[in-house]
Parts: sequence; structure tokens; C-alpha cells
Amino acid sequence: MFQNKETTPISELGEFGLINHLTQHIKTERDTTITGVGDDASVMKIGNKYCVQSSEIFAENIDFDLTFHPLKHLGYKMVVATISDVLAMNVIPSHLLVNIALSSRFTLEAIEELYAGILIACKEYNLDLVGGDTGSSQSGLVVSMTATGFTKNKESLTYRGGAKSNDLLVSTGDLGGAYMGLQILEREKKIFLEHKEMQPDLEKYDYIVGRQLRPLARLDVVQTLLDLDIVPTSMMDISDGVASEINHMGTAGKVGFNIYEQKLPIDPQTLDVALEFNLNPSIVALNGGDDYELLMTLDQKHFDKIKGNPDLTVIGHVTESAGAYNMVTQADQVFPIEAQGFSDKS
Amino acid sequence: MFQNKETTPISELGEFGLINHLTQHIKTERDTTITGVGDDASVMKIGNKYCVQSSEIFAENIDFDLTFHPLKHLGYKMVVATISDVLAMNVIPSHLLVNIALSSRFTLEAIEELYAGILIACKEYNLDLVGGDTGSSQSGLVVSMTATGFTKNKESLTYRGGAKSNDLLVSTGDLGGAYMGLQILEREKKIFLEHKEMQPDLEKYDYIVGRQLRPLARLDVVQTLLDLDIVPTSMMDISDGVASEINHMGTAGKVGFNIYEQKLPIDPQTLDVALEFNLNPSIVALNGGDDYELLMTLDQKHFDKIKGNPDLTVIGHVTESAGAYNMVTQADQVFPIEAQGFSDKS
Repeated sequence: MFQNKETTPISELGEFGLINHLTQHIKTERDTTITGVGDDASVMKIGNKYCVQSSEIFAENIDFDLTFHPLKHLGYKMVVATISDVLAMNVIPSHLLVNIALSSRFTLEAIEELYAGILIACKEYNLDLVGGDTGSSQSGLVVSMTATGFTKNKESLTYRGGAKSNDLLVSTGDLGGAYMGLQILEREKKIFLEHKEMQPDLEKYDYIVGRQLRPLARLDVVQTLLDLDIVPTSMMDISDGVASEINHMGTAGKVGFNIYEQKLPIDPQTLDVALEFNLNPSIVALNGGDDYELLMTLDQKHFDKIKGNPDLTVIGHVTESAGAYNMVTQADQVFPIEAQGFSDKS
Repeated sequence: MFQNKETTPISELGEFGLINHLTQHIKTERDTTITGVGDDASVMKIGNKYCVQSSEIFAENIDFDLTFHPLKHLGYKMVVATISDVLAMNVIPSHLLVNIALSSRFTLEAIEELYAGILIACKEYNLDLVGGDTGSSQSGLVVSMTATGFTKNKESLTYRGGAKSNDLLVSTGDLGGAYMGLQILEREKKIFLEHKEMQPDLEKYDYIVGRQLRPLARLDVVQTLLDLDIVPTSMMDISDGVASEINHMGTAGKVGFNIYEQKLPIDPQTLDVALEFNLNPSIVALNGGDDYELLMTLDQKHFDKIKGNPDLTVIGHVTESAGAYNMVTQADQVFPIEAQGFSDKS
């Protein structure tokens, strides 16, 4: 069908480039559509409420590796990754749809494990699993999930683009752990494939391996914000790394960011293993994905409310220099932050 | 992980068996959940409105064959298949999420074609495409779509299980065309693979090939029902074939069905090609999938309103004999209808 036309490899655009290209001409027509393509989740007005939806797709050997990812953990993690985008809108997710396509190499018992992990996550995050589709695939496992949440308060919805100059940049939890966990798992996989008699000893890496295999969704933090009567000016979940997320937030809000290196929350295990791999821990914290923490900007007036809260760390602030993303070291040196995942560098 | 356990091949359960097995213990907890797993779509109560959602997954070489399915038509068809489940709840779909995982063999131009078809369907059915996810897959194309619609009228929602004895069984459009179109496409593909110099001439099969490659969603019929002030007692979309759908409706409603062979709406081209393939056209009409027509049960009081409507054909009625599904021939012979797709027979 296309043999006589010019062809462009998808790889030339990258994931975000492809999404931007495909969605650039999409227009929404309905007055119930508040937010369409381009934020963590879509927002629809339904009577006197707002419906927030996000959908994700996960493909085997791209988004997960079953040689080291137990299916129960994987099911749990997929739910976390999906609801994380609804949480990033400052909304509590309530309902989940799960679509699964799987090849015949999967046994019923394997799929029961995946489902068990999904149901554990549903219980933990108080989600009702209300439907979906199960079918075959020719090779491997592909899962797609859709999470929905509702709010009556339009003013509490947080978008990517609301950051204002001098707002605080705040991260939940700690950063870079999931990425270093993945490095350990991939190293051990390589060793195992070369020396099958060796059993990997992951115990000393338990924290970071856990961050990779079974991350948590920060529903607790969204609840905390509600309790503290704080509405962030903007928010995203950290799925691709802080450097990538501030790029999205900066572009959408026409602002810049300064991040203070010594403020980056890094777990000691992440730090040790980064050094073991000869990686700069700050670069790991800024570029590692899969943490599913929340990154938000807050008006400075809220500082006293969050001061000392171990879940919320001020890592920088918003500047009026649109598109300028900098890391400031303890010695006051300034380095531009490049928004790139590790996968692009290797 | 499972090496010491008993294992069960998925194929032992079949698609519906697998879904039933996985979902049998799912309980919903939220009082906003009206309908969870087990109908065409899920229903949630949001303030004074009802949110209806359905999600589908489509995998290459399982749900579609790109050797004969143009990507633009495919994108359109996937939207039809997805919104068809919302329509089957008697609700007009309004919003769509699209997730795509694709391998590097796809060019940008190919994905633009797929997206063009999706956007044509969005325009035709007045849907706002509000989000989704685009990622890689290791092999082939997998698409997952989620459709959402809203209604304020709880009484207008139609479920699988509401059929009452003596209700009319009504089908929209005509039946079996998409299945016979698929037979033509697969025959021509085989000929083409053996004799590459031959170009298939599909013109004389235009109607049934069109039914397979680019079926229509019956949004018009749901609008007609609204205009005629008719609420079906039950409704499903015909994705797996009438025989399969009445089995679901009969099980859910604890009723049986009698279908009159001479009432089955079959297009002349479907009839001719069925005979060309030595197939019984009635069996094709009952078991062929992919038509995406609607199958509904109506209280007899509505008969005068639908009489003579070319879109709505009374093909039988509901009986109190739970689980008894029969076809009655012109000679008053009665045959039990087996709920099986053709794929199980071959």
C-alpha cells in the first residue's frame, strides 16, 4: 500500500516525537471535553463532576522482562503505573479496566499470578476492577489498563502547565532507585545466562530491586495534599525521570527550573550501587525512570505546611527562564539538565 | 517460578472460559460501581449521571491480518468494535482513548494511515479522542481502545440479562456478511501467495468484503430507539455471532430463544457466497462474527413502532425455557443452535 511513497522509520521521531506528530491535528468537539491529549490524563465534565481517565499499554520485552519480573509483581506494577497518571492530576482513582493479550506459551497458572498481582493492587488502592478484554497474541504478553477517577472540585485538578515563577519544585519519596534496581537485575540476568548454576543473591539490593519490580503509587500523598488543603500549581508522575518531566512541565508552563543537587532525595542503597556502576548518583536521580513518585510545583505560601514532611522534598524552584533547566551544585556551579532517558545514551 | 506446579494450557478453557475463571472472584466495593465485569461495558454512577466504559484489545495476526486489511480501514474498524459495546448498553459513546504498541517494521506513514482511519471514525461517530499511550512492541501491532459514554437516564441502560419471556428478538442490519467477506479475503490471500502475479478481483464481493474490512457501528439505531421511546429489555453487539450472543443473553437472563430461519436478514451477496463455499447461509448468519450489528430483545408492545423499519428485523422471540436456543425452519422443524464460532469447528 505504501510502496510508492516516502517512508520514515518510527525511530527517527522517538516516542514523544511520534505522539506529538500523530496528535498535532486532533481537535476535540464536545463541550464536555475539558482536557484531551497532552496531559497525564484526560478530563471530562459530567454533570457536576469531572471524570479523569488515563490508559497505558505494556509490551513484553519492551516494558518488562519476564526473566526477572515475577508475574504477580508485574500485575501490581502495571496498576501502579496506570493509576499514577490519574494521581498526577490530583485525583483519587476509583475504577480500572484491564485488557490482556497473551500467547499460548502462558499457562492458566501464570495468568492467575498476573491477575493476583492486579487484584492485590486494586485492594491496596481501593480500586474496583470493572471490566476489560482478554484475547490472544501471536507472541508474548501485552497488557493495557485504563484507570478512571472522579472529582467534584474543578479547582483541585492539577495540570502539567500551571507552574509559576518562584514556585517550589517538590518531589515525593526518593529518586533513581528503580533505575539502579533494573541495572542490578539486568546484570544478574546476564551472569545467570552465562553461568546457569549460579543463583543471584539480590538480598543486599532488596530496596532498589523492590523499587523496580514493585513500585508504589503515591495515593497517600494525594490524600495528604487534600488534608493539608494544598493544590499544586502543576504535577506529573515520574515515569520517565525528573529531567524528562520538568521538560514537559517547562514546555507546557513556559517556565524553567533550577534543581539543587544536594537536595535530591537519594536512598543510600541507590547511592552505593550508582557508585558501584560508576554512575553519578545525581544523574541517576534526575534521569532514572519507573519510580512513580510525584513531581509537583507549589506556591511558596505552602512551605510551612510541608516543611519536615518526609514524603515531600523541595528539590528546586521554578524560574521565569522558559526552557532553561539547570542543576545547581553545592559549589554553586550550574549545569544544564538534559532531558534524556538512559536508554538514549547507551 | 511455576516449574513445580501443575500447569493448564489456556487453550483448555477458551476465551470465555478464561475470562470467567479469572473474574469469578472479583468483587466490587465502591457504591459508585453499578455494573462491573460481565456485561458489554461497565457502568459507574457519577453524581446524577452514569458513566459507561468499554475497552478492547486487538493483536496482529489474531484479530486482524495486515496482508489484506488496509491500515486506514483497520483503525476505523477498531473504533467501531470498541464503541459498539457502549452502544449495546443503549448509550451514545462520546470519548475515546487509544493505546498503540508497534514494532520497528512500521513506518511513520503506516501509523499515520492507522490514525487517519481512527480519526475518520471519531468524526463520523462524534467522538473526542482524548488520550492514550504509544509505545513499542517486539513483534507486530497491538492496539487497545477504551470508549466512554454518559447518560443521565438509568432506566435507559440495557444489560445482557433483562430479556423476558415472549419478548421479541430483534437484529439490526444483516448477518453473516463480515464472515463471508473474511472467507473471500483469506481465499484470495492464499491464491496471491501461490501466484504472486495474480491480482485479486474483489469487486464482485464488494459488499461482504466491506462488511469485514470496514463495518459500521449502529449509533444510528441507538438514536432511533431513543426517538421511538423504546428501551430494549436486553441488548448486545454482534461481535462473535448471534449464536454466541443469545447464549450470553440466555444465561444472564435465564431464558431461551427461538429464532425463525426464514426471518434471518441475509444480504443476497452473503447468500450467494455462502452457497459458493458450500456453507448453509443460516448457519453463517447465526455464527459469523464481526458484523457489529445490535441484537436486542423488545417488549411486544413496541412491535407497531418497529414494524417495517428496514434497520430492525424481528428474528425470533424469548422463551421461558432457560438455556434452550432453537432455530425453527420454514417447515417447522426445530434445531438446537450451538454457540460456537467457526474457528472452533475448522
